[in-house]
Amino acid sequence: MEYRFADRINNLKPSAIREILKNNDPNVIPLAAGNPAVESFPIEEMREIANHIFDTKAGEAFQYGITEGYTPLREQLKARLRDRFGMNGENDDLLIVSGAQQAIDLATKVLCNEGDVMISENPAFIGALNTFRSYGVILKGVNVEEDGMNIEELEKALKENKNVKMIYTIPSFQNPLGTCTSLEKRKAIYDLCVKYGVIILEDNPYGELRFDGEDIPTIKSMDTEGIVIYCGSMSKVMSAGIRIGFVLAPKAIAAKMTVGKQASDVHTNLFFQMLVSEYMEKYDYDGHIESIRKLYKHKSGLMLSAIRETFPKEVKYTVPEGGLFLWCTLPDGADMLGFVQYCKEKGVSVVPGVAFNVEENTPSQCFRLNYSTPSDEKVVEGTKILGKALQEYLSR
Amino acid sequence: MEYRFADRINNLKPSAIREILKNNDPNVIPLAAGNPAVESFPIEEMREIANHIFDTKAGEAFQYGITEGYTPLREQLKARLRDRFGMNGENDDLLIVSGAQQAIDLATKVLCNEGDVMISENPAFIGALNTFRSYGVILKGVNVEEDGMNIEELEKALKENKNVKMIYTIPSFQNPLGTCTSLEKRKAIYDLCVKYGVIILEDNPYGELRFDGEDIPTIKSMDTEGIVIYCGSMSKVMSAGIRIGFVLAPKAIAAKMTVGKQASDVHTNLFFQMLVSEYMEKYDYDGHIESIRKLYKHKSGLMLSAIRETFPKEVKYTVPEGGLFLWCTLPDGADMLGFVQYCKEKGVSVVPGVAFNVEENTPSQCFRLNYSTPSDEKVVEGTKILGKALQEYLSR
Repeated sequence: MEYRFADRINNLKPSAIREILKNNDPNVIPLAAGNPAVESFPIEEMREIANHIFDTKAGEAFQYGITEGYTPLREQLKARLRDRFGMNGENDDLLIVSGAQQAIDLATKVLCNEGDVMISENPAFIGALNTFRSYGVILKGVNVEEDGMNIEELEKALKENKNVKMIYTIPSFQNPLGTCTSLEKRKAIYDLCVKYGVIILEDNPYGELRFDGEDIPTIKSMDTEGIVIYCGSMSKVMSAGIRIGFVLAPKAIAAKMTVGKQASDVHTNLFFQMLVSEYMEKYDYDGHIESIRKLYKHKSGLMLSAIRETFPKEVKYTVPEGGLFLWCTLPDGADMLGFVQYCKEKGVSVVPGVAFNVEENTPSQCFRLNYSTPSDEKVVEGTKILGKALQEYLSR
Repeated sequence: MEYRFADRINNLKPSAIREILKNNDPNVIPLAAGNPAVESFPIEEMREIANHIFDTKAGEAFQYGITEGYTPLREQLKARLRDRFGMNGENDDLLIVSGAQQAIDLATKVLCNEGDVMISENPAFIGALNTFRSYGVILKGVNVEEDGMNIEELEKALKENKNVKMIYTIPSFQNPLGTCTSLEKRKAIYDLCVKYGVIILEDNPYGELRFDGEDIPTIKSMDTEGIVIYCGSMSKVMSAGIRIGFVLAPKAIAAKMTVGKQASDVHTNLFFQMLVSEYMEKYDYDGHIESIRKLYKHKSGLMLSAIRETFPKEVKYTVPEGGLFLWCTLPDGADMLGFVQYCKEKGVSVVPGVAFNVEENTPSQCFRLNYSTPSDEKVVEGTKILGKALQEYLSR
């Protein structure tokens, strides 16, 4: 039978990064990955809590739960966002989702009709871009500079496009750039969105992972008008595999997202919602995050040293103050896809920048590096292989 | 700010059943529920396996996994479907999903454009109907008789509607009816769908829970043409709260569903995928299912005895040979919603049939009963309260 697929899915290709992850050649050092370090997961504590749940609450943990999520965890997260990050949340509701990816999916599901316009940072997280594409929205990219989106470009995009429903941004330790949007630009983005009546989808999976510099307030913390949907994740703090994230959104939007989630997966794995809740209650959650920051400061330092030692001068790179990534730019005219293939042959994988472009098939002189996934030794070894490959490739 | 929601989500109301579950009054016996019995979950064995995963595979379990699911579990499930149920699967792929609800969501996502027609059994599982509605498809209902869909109505619907993409059916222990589609009708449905080039979405969450009569082959087991998407669930066998289901679909469709799932939640909770896999490998999975069958034979027997003892003669009911539900029909002209409210005041909840209607706001003389959720004592007590309420209500 010849299958007639929906239009939305015909525009969608498998994630280049997921495909790289899947075809995992053990001889290639995966600087292309985006996984958190396994050492950053509190595995022994999770085991203790798991056994405690089996002892005391198994009946609840293994039964159906409510779509909004495990009530104690929702309250804990809301209190933490309020007390630590100034996200008041009085007019908001917090839902537990199956990873922040689902928050992005639900936000688009409830807000965007096919043909509506979404504005995204360019380059941007490929997983989010694919979700937007899966709803048939028209994506408009706004270029990201060292300190966040180009504000003139953003205003132009808001002015020129009708039916702009949402702006997508990762203001802290952006994926793929590794850089932060400045406080000034966060304010400017917020003000523009108030002016044009546009929702901001603030994706903040790495916000807690700052290891240098000063914290910058989230856009959500400025949200007096109820226009910001804030996505958080447990993937980089507790575990990626458990698929637990959360979303803080204006009550009317959260209610629609709940109905959307009901139709998607009913609710998120309840056992691990309870486990995260008990961890936050009984263990040193902040101390644990502090230890992850130290770990990534160390690992990013190893990568930066090897870069300084081996990269040709004409290759530019960002110096992250947190998160998992840094971003390298080759001189104009370099054949990036050829170079990525060349790297793989030499034993190291990187993600070509083109994968993160809002407009597909536009060229990119960049690639993304990750320092959280490989061991310390492999971070150094992989970066040096890459440096050597760059030297050879650029002197051709 | 006045929010402009997507059209798809404006048509969607929160699930009546979920709302009943949420506003759980402990004084009301929940014959409205649809939860499996907690006693049916192999909790002690799950604890042993959980500890074993913490001992030996925690690094893998807590890291990102691949979208298709945990490879050993996929192979085990595929082998079981083939060897035990004759679902050959040579031209199919099996994906792990976050509950069968997600399989329904993904099937619709990849196949249906807004405005496409879907045919569903009427009445039908409300969760599936809401998923279909969330994609803006046009739903056409085909009435279900004691032995499955009315085949003439089905052929008429296939003939008269253009762009029919999919037919939705729960052939075994239908939700809400509790009855099965006969082998003859399964064959007829399959043949019609081949003739009209329409995909069958076969939802089988209760298929293994037969406690009387003979197994009937699944429609998927007849699928030589690659037109059946088969959804299975761990919710009634291992645990509902873990949110693990699976889907066996023609390879081309499975590939699209994988891309769709990537954009929805990346992958399903990996720890519990590994746990289910280890359970199937090391424990007596078939013996465990046998014990659930005995449990539900017992519980349905308690409910049927209390029905025979207390229900007025003019109330009709189905006698299930498996699954979780039975379906009661009041005489014509009864005010169902008034009756459901009356029951609640008397201390027992049931789901009004109108909730399962494909065309919303059409009347129903029916309600659904569940015997798996309450304790034995409460099943009997609740059914007797209901019987008394029926006597009082119908003699008014």
